[in-house]
Amino acid sequence: MKSDIPVTSLQRLPVYLNYLKSLASDGFISSGAIARALGMGEVLVRKDLAFTSAQGKTRVGYSRTELISALEDYLGCNDKKKAVIFGAGELGKALLSYGGFSNYGIEVVAAFDNDSAKTGTYVGGKPIFDAETSTQKLTEIDARLGVICVPAHGAQAVADTLIACGVKKILNFAPVLLRVPDGVIVRNIDVAANLAILSSMI
Amino acid sequence: MKSDIPVTSLQRLPVYLNYLKSLASDGFISSGAIARALGMGEVLVRKDLAFTSAQGKTRVGYSRTELISALEDYLGCNDKKKAVIFGAGELGKALLSYGGFSNYGIEVVAAFDNDSAKTGTYVGGKPIFDAETSTQKLTEIDARLGVICVPAHGAQAVADTLIACGVKKILNFAPVLLRVPDGVIVRNIDVAANLAILSSMI
Repeated sequence: MKSDIPVTSLQRLPVYLNYLKSLASDGFISSGAIARALGMGEVLVRKDLAFTSAQGKTRVGYSRTELISALEDYLGCNDKKKAVIFGAGELGKALLSYGGFSNYGIEVVAAFDNDSAKTGTYVGGKPIFDAETSTQKLTEIDARLGVICVPAHGAQAVADTLIACGVKKILNFAPVLLRVPDGVIVRNIDVAANLAILSSMI
Repeated sequence: MKSDIPVTSLQRLPVYLNYLKSLASDGFISSGAIARALGMGEVLVRKDLAFTSAQGKTRVGYSRTELISALEDYLGCNDKKKAVIFGAGELGKALLSYGGFSNYGIEVVAAFDNDSAKTGTYVGGKPIFDAETSTQKLTEIDARLGVICVPAHGAQAVADTLIACGVKKILNFAPVLLRVPDGVIVRNIDVAANLAILSSMI
């Protein structure tokens, strides 16, 4: 079922969830009201929400609490998933300290770095391990998500290690295209490229 | 001309640029070779590159150096653009220290924060100013890009300040939907949502 959802729809589900959570009151909300609030088309909102288990009522809309639950279920916010970070530079440390992952059931459990000044220390209560030990630690941790925050030239080696240890979902902040086998999914966030794209938009 | 490019095409231009820069040798490269290397369709690659000034030659392809120049021109890598960051927490500091923006002609010149322990200090050689002075400083700096790294509850106020000071392009890391007037463009990067989307993908 989930494999049928277009990525573009999937990407909008957290937007709906954040919006619904930001509303002060419970009760019902229509797809039209959601669409207007988010500056989107109503048909699109209805199609997106139809991928979840939420049932809208004609002329009434969705129960806000039920819709939140349905979105949280769909996004796996209630499944606990462990994530690890490679690279404890400024960005890696920012992610170690960031509390927002728990909203989605994601627990960042550790980081890896090859700088001996960092290994053995803690950031945001999370340990930074020696990257040399990553193969062993990754197996112990049973991580499902890997986040790559190392410089571009080291990113492919980190991806290879993650994949060898069974991690199939990788969020990559390094500005390189990773080569990965079938069955492994990579999402790229190139912050500088995003700013350049924004700058090029009219 | 630029306004005709679909955002999805625009988003791929930095990927081509990074790939071409990663190649060791100069000479010619065909759209087919680029497509195969990036796991994309050849027609798509050709359509995307047609938005730039690059001219491919039949049966030869593109000159690598000319294609890099055309992509850099299109993405404005040679125009100097000033950016400011609001929020000098871990993420804001990571962006202040990050060197990759200059590849796109973007110069991050300063950050703003309301924590007096941070204001007056420097990160990555960039000053952190008191957020109270942001209206005046923004005018002095003549920033074109604003990056929002403050917590969710403060993001709209920061956006309002940026817009009041003439900044029309905003990169928003706060997990909220910003209300902005017509003519202002926002790109959102919600890191936790990205990880949740990745986790939900099969």
